[in-house]
Amino acid sequence: MPNYKLYYFDGRGLAETSRQLFALADVPFEDIRFTREKFMELKPTFPYGQVPVLEVDGVQIPQSVAIARFLAKKFGFAGKTEVEQAIVDGICDQWKDFYVEIKPYYYGKVGVCPPGWEDLEKAKTEVLIPARDKFFGFLKNLLNKNNNGFLVECGITYADLFIVDNMTSLVGWVPEYFEGHPEIEAYYKRVQEFPKLKVWLAKRPNGPI
Amino acid sequence: MPNYKLYYFDGRGLAETSRQLFALADVPFEDIRFTREKFMELKPTFPYGQVPVLEVDGVQIPQSVAIARFLAKKFGFAGKTEVEQAIVDGICDQWKDFYVEIKPYYYGKVGVCPPGWEDLEKAKTEVLIPARDKFFGFLKNLLNKNNNGFLVECGITYADLFIVDNMTSLVGWVPEYFEGHPEIEAYYKRVQEFPKLKVWLAKRPNGPI
Repeated sequence: MPNYKLYYFDGRGLAETSRQLFALADVPFEDIRFTREKFMELKPTFPYGQVPVLEVDGVQIPQSVAIARFLAKKFGFAGKTEVEQAIVDGICDQWKDFYVEIKPYYYGKVGVCPPGWEDLEKAKTEVLIPARDKFFGFLKNLLNKNNNGFLVECGITYADLFIVDNMTSLVGWVPEYFEGHPEIEAYYKRVQEFPKLKVWLAKRPNGPI
Repeated sequence: MPNYKLYYFDGRGLAETSRQLFALADVPFEDIRFTREKFMELKPTFPYGQVPVLEVDGVQIPQSVAIARFLAKKFGFAGKTEVEQAIVDGICDQWKDFYVEIKPYYYGKVGVCPPGWEDLEKAKTEVLIPARDKFFGFLKNLLNKNNNGFLVECGITYADLFIVDNMTSLVGWVPEYFEGHPEIEAYYKRVQEFPKLKVWLAKRPNGPI
């Protein structure tokens, strides 16, 4: 088995989906977590000066979604057929578009507010909520199409993990996040109840993001 | 062979890499191009209400990078090993981060200027050029590492295609785009000289974006 080292801050953030994939597959890895100070020291050693980075037998793979896709393909959580894998990839990219769209709110909450969006209540009403409504609409279509409780036919994938982990941060800040969307709240809970994921969620280091 | 239909506007934009992959592989496809009016009519039929969409024997795959990755994997332009495929994926995600970063300039040029960035000269100096310098630095590291003229060891991939097509738009607007970066200009030309790509570039419908 390859030697895996995952480098990231001491938070869920963009590394959590990969950690969850290791947990789902019962594959050991080194979960290397560091402070911002230590990161600044290590920054020049990472391909794009950022984390997460996965090291596989000494070879560095950067970029959160690329890392998760790599692990998901290895461990069987990336989609069954070539077409299904592409649809899962597309769901992730759609989620990333959502993540970029909600930056004025999200980045404000984590303390790096984009100029002009200092009023977080305004960012919530004008950016987060409309983006949520659009994105939840896509998720509902996917859930209705499959009828297995997850976004694609083969079962749980790394797309579910990215989306649900991000929801964990958002519902932590906006308790009414699922208001008017009971199917999505049920989906959120269903993913977290997935047996091996539930075990990981109970024991992992926890935080707001 | 599957039946492929690629839906997009009549421009290069986010569909061009997939068209180029069909050209590199000599695989026929229906290149369905439409006006904005026709798009508005078809919009509700696409999974996320946007294009490009690839139809494979009637199954729709949305999201430009997911489509290109699907085709690149089929046609042999996605990386050779699992690790190399992940590195190519990561390069694409890094390029997409660059694409998001330069929005104030890029979107201004295509007529959907984000608020506060009406001054395109300012957007060029304050956003595009610093983002370019950072991104070109990453590309130089990759090119130096490989020494085969492309970004990864196996040769040309869909990451080269996305990056070089995007450069075509940028250098069309900013003639000095490669100033001070001769290695990147050489890379830009080298990709376009790739034999089957050169044939496609000579015959394709052309435009500013």
